[in-house]
Amino acid sequence: MPPELNETHDPARRSFVESANTPGCDFPIQNLPFGVFRAAKGQKPRIGVAIGDQVLDIAAAGGSFAGPAAEAARACAAACLNDLMALGPQAWSALRLALSRGLSTDREDKGFRQYLTPMAQAEMVLPVEVGDFTDFFASIFHATNAGRMFRPDNPLMPNYKYVPVAYHSRTSSIIVSGTAFNRPRGQRKAPNEEAPSYGPSRNLDFELELGMYIGASSRLGEPIPVGKAAEHIFGFCLLNNWSARDVQAWEYQPLGPFLGKNFATTVSPWVVTAEAMAPFRTAAFARPTGDPAPLPHLDDADDRAHGGLDITMEAYLSTETMRRAGSEPLRVSQTSFALMYWTVAQMIAHHTSNGCNLAVGDLLGSGTVSGPEKSSWGSLLELTARGREPIALPGGEQRGFIEDGDEIIFRGFCERDGFARIGFGECRAVVLPAK
Amino acid sequence: MPPELNETHDPARRSFVESANTPGCDFPIQNLPFGVFRAAKGQKPRIGVAIGDQVLDIAAAGGSFAGPAAEAARACAAACLNDLMALGPQAWSALRLALSRGLSTDREDKGFRQYLTPMAQAEMVLPVEVGDFTDFFASIFHATNAGRMFRPDNPLMPNYKYVPVAYHSRTSSIIVSGTAFNRPRGQRKAPNEEAPSYGPSRNLDFELELGMYIGASSRLGEPIPVGKAAEHIFGFCLLNNWSARDVQAWEYQPLGPFLGKNFATTVSPWVVTAEAMAPFRTAAFARPTGDPAPLPHLDDADDRAHGGLDITMEAYLSTETMRRAGSEPLRVSQTSFALMYWTVAQMIAHHTSNGCNLAVGDLLGSGTVSGPEKSSWGSLLELTARGREPIALPGGEQRGFIEDGDEIIFRGFCERDGFARIGFGECRAVVLPAK
Repeated sequence: MPPELNETHDPARRSFVESANTPGCDFPIQNLPFGVFRAAKGQKPRIGVAIGDQVLDIAAAGGSFAGPAAEAARACAAACLNDLMALGPQAWSALRLALSRGLSTDREDKGFRQYLTPMAQAEMVLPVEVGDFTDFFASIFHATNAGRMFRPDNPLMPNYKYVPVAYHSRTSSIIVSGTAFNRPRGQRKAPNEEAPSYGPSRNLDFELELGMYIGASSRLGEPIPVGKAAEHIFGFCLLNNWSARDVQAWEYQPLGPFLGKNFATTVSPWVVTAEAMAPFRTAAFARPTGDPAPLPHLDDADDRAHGGLDITMEAYLSTETMRRAGSEPLRVSQTSFALMYWTVAQMIAHHTSNGCNLAVGDLLGSGTVSGPEKSSWGSLLELTARGREPIALPGGEQRGFIEDGDEIIFRGFCERDGFARIGFGECRAVVLPAK
Repeated sequence: MPPELNETHDPARRSFVESANTPGCDFPIQNLPFGVFRAAKGQKPRIGVAIGDQVLDIAAAGGSFAGPAAEAARACAAACLNDLMALGPQAWSALRLALSRGLSTDREDKGFRQYLTPMAQAEMVLPVEVGDFTDFFASIFHATNAGRMFRPDNPLMPNYKYVPVAYHSRTSSIIVSGTAFNRPRGQRKAPNEEAPSYGPSRNLDFELELGMYIGASSRLGEPIPVGKAAEHIFGFCLLNNWSARDVQAWEYQPLGPFLGKNFATTVSPWVVTAEAMAPFRTAAFARPTGDPAPLPHLDDADDRAHGGLDITMEAYLSTETMRRAGSEPLRVSQTSFALMYWTVAQMIAHHTSNGCNLAVGDLLGSGTVSGPEKSSWGSLLELTARGREPIALPGGEQRGFIEDGDEIIFRGFCERDGFARIGFGECRAVVLPAK
């Protein structure tokens, strides 16, 4: 095995939790993502690890651990991952190894079974107390598609191939998957209207993104070199950067998106660790011939060789009518994170290149993950050409943008020959009518 | 006295701390701003109130308080204001009243003197743990001046008179007055350069702003009506939104400022309460004839009548050479917050109009406070026409933008006949060379 891999990645390892060994399961013993759950209503949230269709209470199970794994397990009595994250990569890795061994078929006698809660019964809560939330714009396909709507002749800004463009977004309105929210109101002005009006957004959209949690901080004034950036990532989630396109279009000049995006951001409950993702590191997206090379502080041979992440990401739509009719959600997009123009390491190096400090618990969004083909576009803005070419749904409905009662569901997974499948679970939410 | 005023505003009240009774003092007994200080190196930070040239340790002095003031004083053993803020307006007001009485000449025998630390000896730390930091753009004079640099024929965006434009900024790099920081590096591309390069910013600037701390939260999905917005403000500070203009110019399209502004934001240590500011509420800025009325959700008769704040704000510059020569800092700007196009209540109503929730400890920046005349412009970008018309300094130096070793100092105060002067103290920092 390559040096970054260890026995926790061994595809032959199986769990005594039988559901974890089912082909297609998101949470085999090679995954072990962290989340925060209540085992029953009214109970205090604690950190758990997903295994098959069960959640293991880590602090409870960790009584038998020794050394750094024991200390890490004690940090799992908390109601968010921040303290565990602050212990650093060696502690995360020691805990992962202890959990992998403890949940394996060899250790069925360790008594872990009593610390399992069925996932169907667990209530998942927000896993991380987020300090700052930064959202990038790292897919050149998305940037080109979105730019074309506003500037048909000049879709891509001159800075795009030099700068991993990003903006700060809102932490207070980050919500966990499964939390319904109301359609936002806002100011919007259609081109044929003389003045703006205030009312429910008419162009509500999703953005299919990967979220990245910072697990190791940096100091104010000290850039993180691109070659060290990956070490600052604790793990990954799915992230829906809900967007009110009409509000955004009217407000965004000259200081960027604000109310068009800060009413809600949904994250998946399970944080897939960087260590679990190690087998799915891949070459960074190959810049087309003629594109400028990144400036030296954003360029690194190792990042070019291994900085990509081969994650399949999908978006599904389900309307109230479809649910009543018993129809399955319709997949409207399937894309790959390996197609991103900028790598995660480049995003972190850029973010800190001016001395801006990162803190444990910071969340970075990748920006909408879109590929070159229409089937791989990660927002309705792109998929429906700003609502002009609606998507046909089972049962005869169609959608240009999201309507009240619609549910958007993201799924993500990694697959590679010779390795266990690693899944992200789901990131989903229903849009309720405006209040 | 008007109903929002009470004995704490009485201009006749004097303190037994004699320095507080000096004309021109920023911190008379009518002010009583909160801050967080260490009484000596290595001591745990605690909440204090400024009185003349002294800081009173509130938790220690509050042993003699009763009722809500006693509870509020107990919250002042903390290392930040958040818990005190979370107690709500009645608690803040009760504490202010108890402090005003306890520090008055009538109560010299209460033994408060033992809880005083000379300001010259106190080390001030960041007063608030900021959740989200939003920066507005609420001066039409600044928006017009800045817009003219980029779009000479069309300086003001069509949304400006309808939308209190804002963007999210960075909380991790907020630093307290007196903290030197290094000039940021970044990507910048001059018009005559073919490609960008990465290096120390060549156009480092300040932005003279008022900061506003949220003391009462709101719920996700529930807008705060403009008429209720002022109740959510705990207090005010001076805020320097340092800006690397060259980095900002290259990066800002299409998602707004990011690395050009997130390397450092300096706040003054003393938070002047909304209650202390009550005598200085004034009519909102009168929109010029022909400007559209704000949309109904941003419009309120009471806000028009009293939503302005009559605060004089000043920026000073001091170079290393000037300090060596013993020259006083040069005042480069004097402006008034009463000139802002949007009121604080309108900013809050807009911020939450899409359901975005505010949390205790959130910080809002007003945006650069500029008036109509050149002497009242709140940034070097405006004052020097982007560096083309440098400011002449004592001793023969000149400045287009900030150079290494320069110190920028903000001062703010309110004056009105029949009321005590309320000062903000200073917000200052030295810029060190890039690392």
